[in-house]
Amino acid sequence: MNMSRLLTVIVAALMLLSSAAFAGFEPFQPLPANPPIPSDNPQTSAKIALGKQLYFDNRLSATYRVSCNGCHNVMSAGDDGKAVSRGALGIEGKRSAPTLYNVAYQTVYFWDGRAASLEAAIKEHLISPTEMGMKDKDAVVERLWQTGDYKEIFADTFGPGVALSYETITQALASYIRTLRTPDSDFDRYLRGDKGAISAQAKRGYNEFIEVGCASCHFWVNLSGPVPGLAFQMGEGFYELFPNYPGTKDETRYQLADDIGRYYVTKEETDRRMWRVPVLRNVALTAPYFHNGQVKTLEEAIRVMGTTQLGKVLSRAQQEDIAAFLHTVSGRFPTQKFPRLPTSY
Amino acid sequence: MNMSRLLTVIVAALMLLSSAAFAGFEPFQPLPANPPIPSDNPQTSAKIALGKQLYFDNRLSATYRVSCNGCHNVMSAGDDGKAVSRGALGIEGKRSAPTLYNVAYQTVYFWDGRAASLEAAIKEHLISPTEMGMKDKDAVVERLWQTGDYKEIFADTFGPGVALSYETITQALASYIRTLRTPDSDFDRYLRGDKGAISAQAKRGYNEFIEVGCASCHFWVNLSGPVPGLAFQMGEGFYELFPNYPGTKDETRYQLADDIGRYYVTKEETDRRMWRVPVLRNVALTAPYFHNGQVKTLEEAIRVMGTTQLGKVLSRAQQEDIAAFLHTVSGRFPTQKFPRLPTSY
Repeated sequence: MNMSRLLTVIVAALMLLSSAAFAGFEPFQPLPANPPIPSDNPQTSAKIALGKQLYFDNRLSATYRVSCNGCHNVMSAGDDGKAVSRGALGIEGKRSAPTLYNVAYQTVYFWDGRAASLEAAIKEHLISPTEMGMKDKDAVVERLWQTGDYKEIFADTFGPGVALSYETITQALASYIRTLRTPDSDFDRYLRGDKGAISAQAKRGYNEFIEVGCASCHFWVNLSGPVPGLAFQMGEGFYELFPNYPGTKDETRYQLADDIGRYYVTKEETDRRMWRVPVLRNVALTAPYFHNGQVKTLEEAIRVMGTTQLGKVLSRAQQEDIAAFLHTVSGRFPTQKFPRLPTSY
Repeated sequence: MNMSRLLTVIVAALMLLSSAAFAGFEPFQPLPANPPIPSDNPQTSAKIALGKQLYFDNRLSATYRVSCNGCHNVMSAGDDGKAVSRGALGIEGKRSAPTLYNVAYQTVYFWDGRAASLEAAIKEHLISPTEMGMKDKDAVVERLWQTGDYKEIFADTFGPGVALSYETITQALASYIRTLRTPDSDFDRYLRGDKGAISAQAKRGYNEFIEVGCASCHFWVNLSGPVPGLAFQMGEGFYELFPNYPGTKDETRYQLADDIGRYYVTKEETDRRMWRVPVLRNVALTAPYFHNGQVKTLEEAIRVMGTTQLGKVLSRAQQEDIAAFLHTVSGRFPTQKFPRLPTSY
């Protein structure tokens, strides 16, 4: 924890210094072509195709009514536009479903970082009462065993001797989700040298984003701090206190401190109100905002970050400039074909 | 009504006669390349693309939770594999959601044929409490008016002066749904002269399908009777009594006569237990069966049709042969790209 706070300070300091003095250190970077892939779950086209089938299959939920795509809609910006979502059993979660685009670049998962890998996060989703709602791991495996020709597809995908299992289900889903990337945003093109890729207002917003302090946490590939292999290893989270300036009117208005984040995971006092720094790619497309989804617009979210996180009142012009900048981190969504789901016959 | 019964008898008689004597009359036909398109809703690529967006958009339902695809899943065989489906408001319908593949070739819609066009059927779906559950037509239009940039997309699609309206929403959806066709089934290739396209068992089943009487109703393009422009006009339904042999054990076991079909629409005594003859294309992929979805397997559905509809006990071999034939009417599902749904920003 202290280490991550310390790193934040160091990075912020680095960014304020001349980049000439630190050649090779680039606080912002275009989305890399390939995300980190865990060595025990290499990408294969068969696994990705199977994962896509599973991602869209309602039969992976307790009530046969909800697929992963129900809350993480890849036809939209990868989320569902709701403050909080209702799972298969009709129970609402207490935190807002984030976009799954570009999660391959995260080091930890969930708002509180409690999953050390995408695979671990998926394992929890399938049997969570507020998400897919399956009774237990065995019930998930049994469900797919009985559904269409999934058992044959798993055998074809993972090879002889590797059965349909909770592990392989999770691996296939993770492989597909890792393909959900949005490269070539206007900001990425700007970073690559196309100076006309973003507007004058967005450039002002970019400078303000750094100067007022947003970039102290929202930097690097995903505008969410270190990515795997870059300073941080997979499973090592980059957390921040939120609200950093407690007791504001905005905190009360939007109930921002009712949920104390990572404390529920570790039960350590120093983790009270600590949260994983969220990804800002496509943020203009993924309203509403914050862990509880209580803030409806991007400009308001920027203003509230000013009061609660930076102890600053941002002017209307600053909010709009920063919003203009954040619009430039919306990327190019991949063209995808529909999967064909196994039918039961 | 009498007319359609009469036509059935005529067609059955025709099919039993030598086709040489009736050159030009072909009781079974491959799926035509183009379905009939109503003159007041011509297909355009823009309308089809918009209709696809709407088809996958949960925001078209009262609770923002269900899209058309929820019950008519085009990634599967165009249905949801359930006996009956639960709509956006959580209320179950009383009849099984049919596949939407190849509905462009139907003359009437719903199990009881109460909609005279696809557009009329869609209009009812959007505001039905057991389906999309929107309060009324105005609420549907208002919802899309407030969703992302739909109003601009409608203006671009339908041209200046044609506003986002219940009519245009319906027209776009119908245009997309009319693209959902599954040509080139093994049976279609067989009909085109490829005698090896179906197995010897399927050929036996095909003959039995005609000889025991299935084909008296299940003939022509969709194996569901006349198609638009071919004997019947759009809006003119081809109905049959079901169960035709009332009082069987199977009727009781599967509650087949609890719902009396078209009578609820017309209140005419002659319409008691009358039903639109269902489409059999892809029937092997769209279990469970019958209007109430109570019969789980294709072989059992064939057996029950024997007792309830033909007054015949089909042997196990006959059931299997006819099932083998019906497997050959599963077509080639179109490759489709995901739509991009408007985000709210």
